[in-house]
Amino acid sequence: MRMGFSLPSAAREPRHIPPRGTCDRTPRGYKVLAMSEQEHTTHGYSADKEALLKRLRRIEGQVRGVSRMVDEDNYCIDVLTQISAVNAALHKVSLALVQDHIGHCVVDAAARSAETGDATIVADKVEETAVAIGRLLR
Amino acid sequence: MRMGFSLPSAAREPRHIPPRGTCDRTPRGYKVLAMSEQEHTTHGYSADKEALLKRLRRIEGQVRGVSRMVDEDNYCIDVLTQISAVNAALHKVSLALVQDHIGHCVVDAAARSAETGDATIVADKVEETAVAIGRLLR
Amino acid sequence: MRMGFSLPSAAREPRHIPPRGTCDRTPRGYKVLAMSEQEHTTHGYSADKEALLKRLRRIEGQVRGVSRMVDEDNYCIDVLTQISAVNAALHKVSLALVQDHIGHCVVDAAARSAETGDATIVADKVEETAVAIGRLLR
Amino acid sequence: MRMGFSLPSAAREPRHIPPRGTCDRTPRGYKVLAMSEQEHTTHGYSADKEALLKRLRRIEGQVRGVSRMVDEDNYCIDVLTQISAVNAALHKVSLALVQDHIGHCVVDAAARSAETGDATIVADKVEETAVAIGRLLR
Repeated sequence: MRMGFSLPSAAREPRHIPPRGTCDRTPRGYKVLAMSEQEHTTHGYSADKEALLKRLRRIEGQVRGVSRMVDEDNYCIDVLTQISAVNAALHKVSLALVQDHIGHCVVDAAARSAETGDATIVADKVEETAVAIGRLLR
Repeated sequence: MRMGFSLPSAAREPRHIPPRGTCDRTPRGYKVLAMSEQEHTTHGYSADKEALLKRLRRIEGQVRGVSRMVDEDNYCIDVLTQISAVNAALHKVSLALVQDHIGHCVVDAAARSAETGDATIVADKVEETAVAIGRLLR
Repeated sequence: MRMGFSLPSAAREPRHIPPRGTCDRTPRGYKVLAMSEQEHTTHGYSADKEALLKRLRRIEGQVRGVSRMVDEDNYCIDVLTQISAVNAALHKVSLALVQDHIGHCVVDAAARSAETGDATIVADKVEETAVAIGRLLR
Repeated sequence: MRMGFSLPSAAREPRHIPPRGTCDRTPRGYKVLAMSEQEHTTHGYSADKEALLKRLRRIEGQVRGVSRMVDEDNYCIDVLTQISAVNAALHKVSLALVQDHIGHCVVDAAARSAETGDATIVADKVEETAVAIGRLLR
């Protein structure tokens, strides 16, 4: 799976303060900047937002299907098979988000670290990413 | 987690053909029997059906919450955290189904094997269960 | 994967105290009995013991291979690929153990519950099994 | 878990061709460079190599312990519990490798993309990383 990817503008224009889009937990403030730049920058998973939302709606429907199976007393093994399908679909969504996060937010943080000489910016981002992946592995 | 458990009637009354409820993929035929016996028999997960349905509805809501987070451009790591919560909730449902399946359908098949002397009845059930668990492990 | 399976003798000879082999955490006492009965009874995973040991030795070698890769500074992604192979091999071993456990220990407990009328024997076994599966799912 | 992290030299000295250490599948050639630079550069997981090797040796010992348990006919549930411990230990090693890989190889690729203007360098690295994480999720 190859997702749309473009180098954050900071990497191409080293003096520029990078817009962070969904790469920051407290997005207030940057939104205006992001807005004015949205023609030439891709933020986080936003490029694939529609695809992600479509997949999530399908997963929601699959969960509803599991409920219906339980309600209609379907055979337990068949219900479990359907739950495995939901797990697999969720894993795909997680993986797409992880890939987008690394490709945008981590790469963007690396550029900011390079610009500012502050290695903790990218180190913190990488650690946060590893913690999130660790939660998925469980 | 301890789920309601009662020995299938077949185990207590060895000559009786056991009703199989949701323990069989082709439920045709036994339904009439099951119906007439439903006062005194517990079939598969049906005892905990309401609890299961409640959990599944909550999971459906959690998935809808993930969609909303993506739609509102929440931070990717926060979306991943929420997906991990959905995974955990689905695992609990799977486990409850597996436990009920073993406690009812496998135990019931063991009783039928004991009655009929046909060991393949329970062996097939056990293998089918292992295959389903294997899909969950992935 | 279909593993050797035979109905525990208790299921066929209801008055007999069933040998429990590896189905019990406190094996003291039953060993003598098990010994005298070993010609006609299969205990837990013992029938497939050699196959299991062979797989485990191979996994041990795979882990040693991962150490060697790290020691020789192999590319991280290649090391991760090898670790995924170890995970998959361990999952197969777990699944074989779970299948044997259900097919022998749970089925044996069901027979003892049927004999004694004490449903808690099998209920406890089933719950313990579910807890072990839950640990594997994580 | 916070692992040692330092910005690749390329990020600090933009004109310099970055040494790639274990960040490349075909390490031939760069080795000489890496060697001459090893005083001031950290490559991939090499900083934590000793810690990784120690963990892997412990895992190898745990797998040997599982073999011994099977050989001595330990209770299946206890064997499964020990296998779950091996799984958890392997997950920790995987996660440490993933974190190091992102923090060194992906960040280094981002710097090379910034230098060269070739966005595919980091995009390829990110995709490769996501594929490896996907294998761990299964």
